[in-house]
Amino acid sequence: MTTLHDPAIRGFASDNYSGIHPEILAAIAAANDGHQIAYGEDQYSERLQEVFRGHLGDGIQAFPVFNGTGANVVGLQSMLPRWGAVITASTAHINVDEGGAPERIGGMKLLTVPTDDGKLTPELVDREAWGWGDEHRAQPLVVSITQSTELGTLYSVDEIRALADHAHGHGMHLHMDGARISNAAAALDAPLRAFTRDAGVDVLSFGGTKNGAMLGEAIVVLNPEASAGLIYGRKYNMQLSSKMRFVSAQLIALLEGDLWLRNARHSNAMAARLRAGIEAGLDAGSIRGVEFTQETQSNGVFATLPDGVADRLRESFRFYDWDAARNEVRWMCSFDTQESDVDAFIAELGRLTTA
Amino acid sequence: MTTLHDPAIRGFASDNYSGIHPEILAAIAAANDGHQIAYGEDQYSERLQEVFRGHLGDGIQAFPVFNGTGANVVGLQSMLPRWGAVITASTAHINVDEGGAPERIGGMKLLTVPTDDGKLTPELVDREAWGWGDEHRAQPLVVSITQSTELGTLYSVDEIRALADHAHGHGMHLHMDGARISNAAAALDAPLRAFTRDAGVDVLSFGGTKNGAMLGEAIVVLNPEASAGLIYGRKYNMQLSSKMRFVSAQLIALLEGDLWLRNARHSNAMAARLRAGIEAGLDAGSIRGVEFTQETQSNGVFATLPDGVADRLRESFRFYDWDAARNEVRWMCSFDTQESDVDAFIAELGRLTTA
Amino acid sequence: MTTLHDPAIRGFASDNYSGIHPEILAAIAAANDGHQIAYGEDQYSERLQEVFRGHLGDGIQAFPVFNGTGANVVGLQSMLPRWGAVITASTAHINVDEGGAPERIGGMKLLTVPTDDGKLTPELVDREAWGWGDEHRAQPLVVSITQSTELGTLYSVDEIRALADHAHGHGMHLHMDGARISNAAAALDAPLRAFTRDAGVDVLSFGGTKNGAMLGEAIVVLNPEASAGLIYGRKYNMQLSSKMRFVSAQLIALLEGDLWLRNARHSNAMAARLRAGIEAGLDAGSIRGVEFTQETQSNGVFATLPDGVADRLRESFRFYDWDAARNEVRWMCSFDTQESDVDAFIAELGRLTTA
Amino acid sequence: MTTLHDPAIRGFASDNYSGIHPEILAAIAAANDGHQIAYGEDQYSERLQEVFRGHLGDGIQAFPVFNGTGANVVGLQSMLPRWGAVITASTAHINVDEGGAPERIGGMKLLTVPTDDGKLTPELVDREAWGWGDEHRAQPLVVSITQSTELGTLYSVDEIRALADHAHGHGMHLHMDGARISNAAAALDAPLRAFTRDAGVDVLSFGGTKNGAMLGEAIVVLNPEASAGLIYGRKYNMQLSSKMRFVSAQLIALLEGDLWLRNARHSNAMAARLRAGIEAGLDAGSIRGVEFTQETQSNGVFATLPDGVADRLRESFRFYDWDAARNEVRWMCSFDTQESDVDAFIAELGRLTTA
Repeated sequence: MTTLHDPAIRGFASDNYSGIHPEILAAIAAANDGHQIAYGEDQYSERLQEVFRGHLGDGIQAFPVFNGTGANVVGLQSMLPRWGAVITASTAHINVDEGGAPERIGGMKLLTVPTDDGKLTPELVDREAWGWGDEHRAQPLVVSITQSTELGTLYSVDEIRALADHAHGHGMHLHMDGARISNAAAALDAPLRAFTRDAGVDVLSFGGTKNGAMLGEAIVVLNPEASAGLIYGRKYNMQLSSKMRFVSAQLIALLEGDLWLRNARHSNAMAARLRAGIEAGLDAGSIRGVEFTQETQSNGVFATLPDGVADRLRESFRFYDWDAARNEVRWMCSFDTQESDVDAFIAELGRLTTA
Repeated sequence: MTTLHDPAIRGFASDNYSGIHPEILAAIAAANDGHQIAYGEDQYSERLQEVFRGHLGDGIQAFPVFNGTGANVVGLQSMLPRWGAVITASTAHINVDEGGAPERIGGMKLLTVPTDDGKLTPELVDREAWGWGDEHRAQPLVVSITQSTELGTLYSVDEIRALADHAHGHGMHLHMDGARISNAAAALDAPLRAFTRDAGVDVLSFGGTKNGAMLGEAIVVLNPEASAGLIYGRKYNMQLSSKMRFVSAQLIALLEGDLWLRNARHSNAMAARLRAGIEAGLDAGSIRGVEFTQETQSNGVFATLPDGVADRLRESFRFYDWDAARNEVRWMCSFDTQESDVDAFIAELGRLTTA
Repeated sequence: MTTLHDPAIRGFASDNYSGIHPEILAAIAAANDGHQIAYGEDQYSERLQEVFRGHLGDGIQAFPVFNGTGANVVGLQSMLPRWGAVITASTAHINVDEGGAPERIGGMKLLTVPTDDGKLTPELVDREAWGWGDEHRAQPLVVSITQSTELGTLYSVDEIRALADHAHGHGMHLHMDGARISNAAAALDAPLRAFTRDAGVDVLSFGGTKNGAMLGEAIVVLNPEASAGLIYGRKYNMQLSSKMRFVSAQLIALLEGDLWLRNARHSNAMAARLRAGIEAGLDAGSIRGVEFTQETQSNGVFATLPDGVADRLRESFRFYDWDAARNEVRWMCSFDTQESDVDAFIAELGRLTTA
Repeated sequence: MTTLHDPAIRGFASDNYSGIHPEILAAIAAANDGHQIAYGEDQYSERLQEVFRGHLGDGIQAFPVFNGTGANVVGLQSMLPRWGAVITASTAHINVDEGGAPERIGGMKLLTVPTDDGKLTPELVDREAWGWGDEHRAQPLVVSITQSTELGTLYSVDEIRALADHAHGHGMHLHMDGARISNAAAALDAPLRAFTRDAGVDVLSFGGTKNGAMLGEAIVVLNPEASAGLIYGRKYNMQLSSKMRFVSAQLIALLEGDLWLRNARHSNAMAARLRAGIEAGLDAGSIRGVEFTQETQSNGVFATLPDGVADRLRESFRFYDWDAARNEVRWMCSFDTQESDVDAFIAELGRLTTA
């Protein structure tokens, strides 16, 4: 098979538009050849447990899966009895981007709360945290947060701990969708453990795909009492890889050294460069009419543009509308975003808004 | 990440104990770098459609997914209304090896029929093909066969056509679990199309993982009238890969040239060598007490062994019991099985049975 | 079995706290004795079809079920492919009072919209009516409204028609939860057909239980193209009564003559009397501090009370808090509510608020 | 509503073709009038607990539901984690007559075993009782038996105890589908408790509908450790009656005195009379060519008939084919079957088989 695409083209559409980091591809190759027991009893999957324990401490268990929806739905299902519900922000990926998988496959109800910035607070949780024991109400037993959020914002360690304490105080558990958790770790400049296990998170979806893997996420059970039956749930939910060594190898490559942080720091830095460049342009008048709609705390920039600019800008760079009704767009940076990509983008944005 | 395992060790446990064929690993690398649209709108996924059409003709559509359970469950679900049932052999992978995923996730009932060799016939189908219109009975609307079967046996083209005609005559559709379809093609020495689309198969699970891929299968809709909503079903069933180009690239690498056949012919040949070697040993008296329980028509050999032999043999070579109660074992060959592996295995079997 | 309760006690908790209207109990008795084919092929279930056709015209079909949750979930499921979603008011019974049954059993996602009065409008529908063809989004294919609403309010015929036209214009169907549809008919003083089939409703949950039946609802398919497989769906969703004649007889008793309207007019009148009496009391100063929070358009009255009054009032009359945080309560009237019940309630409310 | 059917016509089709026993109808009436708390907090539902405890001892809990499929599916689901499976006879109602509800709604897999007489034994259970801990296998955690069986046969107390001990020894629980449990009690001449709780049954579906109720069954949890979340499961599975007092009143009427036994003894006696009469006819030559295919141990008679007889006999009496391929039919007796019905049936059978 030959290369069919132009490997020089990059955009700002999503961090999953990028490919595989060379070190991860090398890890796949290093795990190749010979036979290994299928379905996770291989040496790489065993090593991955050690690697995760190195970050998160003893007593945790990681379950590699194929993708983020799988990690979220299978992880959340394992945290809930059949009558359970999940309190989450209305902008959460599980609510808006998974085709109803949490409800249809996970069998759970989502109790959603509007937020300004994609972040729950104890007060926001309380809007739906009630009705335990009432059989007519889907029982709120899990709070799910996304770190970093779908809006590029970030929970502080204290904010997570407050949510965990609040959830636990009501007999609920805390789930973290960490599709971009490495970006959060880089932004917080904190150990993985500090804002997950030590902050009270019970089950974590650890994301590899958006941070340079080919595919691969892990459901990480930080509190064994908060999850049941994952060994079965991963299988019947169709997320059990036979040649699991190759999923595990990717996650090892990310987490054994500092690749997860290097990649995340880079994409965060590119987003910061993008924002700073636009802000400078706005100050200088070389860019006009752009307004930021969220803090840029990880690797995404959200802004509104003057009418018509988004489509013209897309002639050169791919990116998505976030809320087309108000010209709000999302620009995502990736581990492979180059400074030159950002600078060219800023220049074109300036050209289009000052034309 | 460094290599943790001994790449020189191979066994006869399963074709998914093997790794990635070098040409497939090269294809993953060739598809790397730069940005491609996520979730299947990339150039490799587009090319894969052409490759499948080259084999199967116009009008078909392929949906890459992660694994075989995903291909089977999502494909079958797309063939059924919510009240549907699937007639299948009781030995079918969907019945015994998928943790109940067809029922729990697919929401379908399996109507199972005992067989001698893992193969359905129209007569066997008729044991469960009745009760249409009766609301008390889960409605039999799909027949599912496995090619090659879980017992290493093979449907002839005529046998498939007879099943398809029979199913269609009753208003049912025909599904084929092709986890090892390349082995079947190699054994039949027939074009892929001859024993699938042209024989009346409506939806096919095309397997890559057991034939040298890292992971990757495709639901191939051969008859568009037999399947609905796969674009959605793949997503909410958590089988939609974001960086799909890397799944598609693997399948292209298999199917663009003859790698799929080369690999399958090789594993079939190794199984034939294994069987022939044992038969020769039995004739010569250098092996004793082994009896074959199934025809060896693809890449698996099924046999019963004298008491205690299986466990001693496993000290040198991994393989699985099939029916421990009667000392029946399964030996699977893979694309990377070497002649020397087979010969050493035969020698050890001889040593243990004549000791 | 002897009577265990005090049949003289009535309250304002819910219209399902009441018992069976004598004419309905007589209908059950009239359908008794002898054998009738089970599961709906009896003469009463056949007659029920005629009765419904008399109200709604030819071409409709009614499926008797046990309860309202069953009617809603089974009916909605029949309107949706597996990838479908339902747009509904956040206060809808299907969202807040069915224990997650629509999601868990129906397999659907609810896309909820906050409203002031429990009523959707085309504009409110549009907040969630988007994203068709996007596999990441649960596909909005049905709009569900409640008539009369959970807040005691009422859609006019024109409002329903506008919603139906809007839904149909987007390729969606319109479902009506008619748990209290008789109250709506009585309040609108319109034929059942005028605000259902003729207004564009596709599938209706017709409620009997809250209007004097022992138990019994019907899923009524007004537009056969909007529903599939109900005959099977009712069975596998466990809503198929074996001795269905007794469910059908109750609905016949309601609908054959004017019992459905008599009962509903009475309960509406009792709610109106309650409201008017309180308003008069407020004007006269014999009641203080009560504020109505919704229009009283059917058989429920919603109001806020001074601190502490609700609990003291409940020492004499059962009723529910609606929003305890702001002292909002709900008072429901039933077919068997007596004028004296209402008057005594008003008097006690006066006593407590002026003490 | 007037009577539409001929109350003098009775057949042998099913015990659910019959109507409501007068004492049960009277109980419904006795529970009528006034208000009672909905959804099971009424005085009749409370009394029902006492009545069940009177039969089964302290520590049990009964959950009234609408129908047998509901009792079985909701009860079984409460006994299983999401990865569970149920071992049952292939002839079990849950396998063949519930439209796939156990799989689709309950989310469980059925592991079915062929039997001669509808009865499991420990040896038959063992065909599927294996594979615990293997994530690829749906985990067998419950054994479900039907008492009396779908084939009119009966488990002895010792047989049930042996199955319970066997199941418990493997960490499984025992479920009993008691749609016709009263017939079993009458036939065994044993207290309800002797062959349920004391014999090791963990959860029971107690059937009322086939024994003279209008509708009404109860899930009875005999071992609280064997069931979880029924209060929620009954609701989200749409089996929670709002006016539950009327379901409970029926079950009280059956179980408070001896009505359950009177009805069951009568239907059993009618089946015995039918069998004895035919046997006498065969001896006397007044009936020819009838062969019994099962023991007649409760209220059903199974037999094969000469070609063509079944259809001609059905011109006078309704009944069902059991296995049309071999002219096997089922004749069910009911609480309201009259001796004259049986005698007329025997006479007609004689006329047709000796013509």
